Amino acid sequence: MGQKIVIIGGVACGPKAAARARRRDPEAEITIVERSEYPSYASCGLPYYVAGVVPEIDQLLTTSFGTVRDVPYFHDVKNIRVLTRTEAVAIDREQKSVKIKSLESGEEDSLPYDKLVLATGARPKKLPVPGIDLENVWNLWTLPDATLMREVIEEGEADRICIIGAGLIGLEAAEALVNQAVETTMIDFMPQVLYGFLDPEMAELVANALRSENIVLGLGEGVKALEGEDGKVTKVVTDKREIEVDGVILAVGAAPSVELARECGLEFGETGAVKVDACLRTSDPNILAGGDCVENVHIVTGKKVWVPLGSTANIHGRLIGDNLTGGESTYPGIVGTGIMRTLGTSAGATGLSETVARDMGYDTVSAVAPYNDKSHYYPGGKNVTIKVVGDRSTGKLLGVQVVGPGDVARIVDASAAALRFGSTLEDLGDMDFAYAPPFGTPIEPLGNTANIARNKREGLAEAIGPLELRDLLATSTDFLLIDVRTQGELEVRPPIDDPRARHIDVSVLRSQLPSLPKDKLVLVVCQLGQRAYDVQCALKGAGFREAKFLEAGLNVFARMQG
Amino acid sequence: MGQKIVIIGGVACGPKAAARARRRDPEAEITIVERSEYPSYASCGLPYYVAGVVPEIDQLLTTSFGTVRDVPYFHDVKNIRVLTRTEAVAIDREQKSVKIKSLESGEEDSLPYDKLVLATGARPKKLPVPGIDLENVWNLWTLPDATLMREVIEEGEADRICIIGAGLIGLEAAEALVNQAVETTMIDFMPQVLYGFLDPEMAELVANALRSENIVLGLGEGVKALEGEDGKVTKVVTDKREIEVDGVILAVGAAPSVELARECGLEFGETGAVKVDACLRTSDPNILAGGDCVENVHIVTGKKVWVPLGSTANIHGRLIGDNLTGGESTYPGIVGTGIMRTLGTSAGATGLSETVARDMGYDTVSAVAPYNDKSHYYPGGKNVTIKVVGDRSTGKLLGVQVVGPGDVARIVDASAAALRFGSTLEDLGDMDFAYAPPFGTPIEPLGNTANIARNKREGLAEAIGPLELRDLLATSTDFLLIDVRTQGELEVRPPIDDPRARHIDVSVLRSQLPSLPKDKLVLVVCQLGQRAYDVQCALKGAGFREAKFLEAGLNVFARMQG
Repeated sequence: MGQKIVIIGGVACGPKAAARARRRDPEAEITIVERSEYPSYASCGLPYYVAGVVPEIDQLLTTSFGTVRDVPYFHDVKNIRVLTRTEAVAIDREQKSVKIKSLESGEEDSLPYDKLVLATGARPKKLPVPGIDLENVWNLWTLPDATLMREVIEEGEADRICIIGAGLIGLEAAEALVNQAVETTMIDFMPQVLYGFLDPEMAELVANALRSENIVLGLGEGVKALEGEDGKVTKVVTDKREIEVDGVILAVGAAPSVELARECGLEFGETGAVKVDACLRTSDPNILAGGDCVENVHIVTGKKVWVPLGSTANIHGRLIGDNLTGGESTYPGIVGTGIMRTLGTSAGATGLSETVARDMGYDTVSAVAPYNDKSHYYPGGKNVTIKVVGDRSTGKLLGVQVVGPGDVARIVDASAAALRFGSTLEDLGDMDFAYAPPFGTPIEPLGNTANIARNKREGLAEAIGPLELRDLLATSTDFLLIDVRTQGELEVRPPIDDPRARHIDVSVLRSQLPSLPKDKLVLVVCQLGQRAYDVQCALKGAGFREAKFLEAGLNVFARMQG
Repeated sequence: MGQKIVIIGGVACGPKAAARARRRDPEAEITIVERSEYPSYASCGLPYYVAGVVPEIDQLLTTSFGTVRDVPYFHDVKNIRVLTRTEAVAIDREQKSVKIKSLESGEEDSLPYDKLVLATGARPKKLPVPGIDLENVWNLWTLPDATLMREVIEEGEADRICIIGAGLIGLEAAEALVNQAVETTMIDFMPQVLYGFLDPEMAELVANALRSENIVLGLGEGVKALEGEDGKVTKVVTDKREIEVDGVILAVGAAPSVELARECGLEFGETGAVKVDACLRTSDPNILAGGDCVENVHIVTGKKVWVPLGSTANIHGRLIGDNLTGGESTYPGIVGTGIMRTLGTSAGATGLSETVARDMGYDTVSAVAPYNDKSHYYPGGKNVTIKVVGDRSTGKLLGVQVVGPGDVARIVDASAAALRFGSTLEDLGDMDFAYAPPFGTPIEPLGNTANIARNKREGLAEAIGPLELRDLLATSTDFLLIDVRTQGELEVRPPIDDPRARHIDVSVLRSQLPSLPKDKLVLVVCQLGQRAYDVQCALKGAGFREAKFLEAGLNVFARMQG
């Protein structure tokens, strides 16, 4: 017989490791131990099941060719044994065996191994407030969670739900609730949605998409307690108000599931996840680990990070399958790519946000610009707003964020590939991407945004951001704001209502330069930022002391006015 | 006064160079010389105007913010002089002046320059056959071409049109004609559509999309002559047949427009385009050149290539603008990225096709696989088929092709970025791309296809391609073909009808291994290729002499059966 491989965890990394090991080693005895009833289900699909977008829960259990990935499937097709409803309770590293316990019968047994794989995943964080164990307080984390939640909603027993946490899962849940016509409130103690993932001005675009669907957003608001009646949650008490609810979704983040690893004395990294080398070996060479329970190297910073993602878990699984069977495959790390879609707006990011980069000590330079995802004359184009963040001192690309109803994933993936190889802003500006009118514009959006950041870094472009302008308008600072749009554009979107603002059509602006004050701050605004940038260059060339253009134009600024 | 900059050519590269130079140098005197009436129009939009998708020709003349980019616009907004309907007839490099001629009045003049930019673009190739000058024989190249063509079609004077050339422009024209309910024939002397851009099996997917819209495809068919009556074209005579037509679109490729450069003695590259250094300087340091009239370095091969693209022209323009005004910007070259959409099917490619790579002497390894562009349970997903080509000896990525109704651009752009930085197949397999159910699958398609190529390179996977299988079925070779799909799948798509084919459901296959012949070629087929690959590994592990799986499965194979 072949070597004994035991894999703890049956969702993404575990089954992939098993399948890969099987292909490379027909003799190995491979066993997967999974706590739930379902091996290898599509956990990322849970919000879409709650939303009703995925009608049947079974759809999350099948493969793309329609076969259910149950225990017989793994046995018959892949010659892999799967023990479901079974918990791994302890690892004996000296004896090389795992103590397991049936969650049905309570019976215990032990599984000897030559190689052990930890793919124990992550679990939702608990909120440390009273009332958290009331009925109708859900995590959107397991199949039973999701089925129960949908049942309660569809039976009309939860018309008002509060989501606590405005991160990726919280926002996906928000879409699900709006789809089910639930009155939705979303509370987060951070001052923006998607904190850390998006910078404030980009997050504001997402927040406004939520507000336009009548979701009540309580940002910068801390939850004090959940209160209930007859054991069911009825109220969320925050530091600002009380919200009457029929249900609560907790989406306050996740933590790696690492009890087994801790109890058997494996080493941990500074992130609190299991420490692994590039071959995904733990501190015990007979134990490999991957997926959400381990930390990764961040390729941009070289530091360790914990970023739980299904896509990374699958890549880990393949690599573990190699290294279980004589391979020496290594994993380079992640650039931290994520994406989500809620209520018609997509948000994706890769690398570092400007907020995170600054917190880490980078001197950043960035640019924000809006685009259409098709040529302007081609029908059906949708807006995307791109932010590119670079390192001012080296010109290196640090991260990219994209938000909008349009084709966000494309720009995020191209950026992720560029980051993976240490791209500079300049490299990105010169990149050879696909262009034809149904797919974009000949001035390529990602490269163009990188070029704006280059222009700012080189001192050619001087910009003011949409949030900065909003703040500045609220002060009594003296400046001249010139709106250079055409008369036709003013009719579509009215000018900024402020005594310091003035309209001068771009076509006559050059001739009026002599009449403008050279020693005052001049802010130039247009629809997308491009003409205002031209004018800023002209003002600078004509000797104006301080001229700035509104980055991303009124197109984005207007969407900041919640 | 500032330096005198003269730019010959007013479409993509020229205006971009002018705008960039203006931003960096407020003093320069900048003049653009353009032969047509329209500076800076969207030439890539012409097929969509003919199709009626773009209703008004003016839409191709406006910017994305709705302003017409006419002569006053350039003057008032950008302080750039544009001479339209003006031809540059000669360059005097010693005197540093350009002789120009008004196409309206015939008057001649001369423009002195400090720096000259050649952005003369490309022009359509002529087909060397009789009858080419008949009426209703069009190139889809200029605004007058397109307006005339649409007028003739909409007046019902061209119900039957033959497109000669099945390249990118020919296929875009095909969509335009089908949109206008024109009976369409397409002839190309190459045996496939998009020769050089796509490999045969990928091209076949596009060809079948055309056939399903009732376009008659004549591939491997040479045009001998065009014949006419009363000066109008009425017949296309090929080496196989005669086709009655009311119009002909010539789309047999393009060539750089380089007469001026040739006459003034600038150096040329081996591609027949103007030779430039990395700063886009010609052999005369006072003359820069960019866009479709110059050649580029291909980053994958290091060799010079001529690839005319609007996106590259714009990048060139920006760089020329820098270098006209004291900069020393350099262009790294292209990876050769292109994309098009016709009749609901997109096709994109970057880097080298396998055909081109082999012609250049590479020992290639490749993989083809079909995917859904959303998670299988998420509604609205569309098919994409990916081909990854690598260098067998080094494992380096050489190129990627993507075809299908789904999200092709995303995969092409991510591949282009990877190629730009010399990615290996392994790098691509481990890449950290964006995943959430509305955007794809946790097993990432591009990386997964790269991994199949790695498996083939390492000898783990042994595949037969869809075209190879088609050829093999036509011979009398002895083999066993096992269809491992489930009964349910057989009902959706019937099995291959061949006496050598047999159905064994994947769930019982392992138990039936002992009854199968070990010394015969065994071909395993399934729907997408994944289960057949599992079975191939199992057969190999069980000592079968020669087992191969059908790459990309019946999903792609079935679409090869024209």
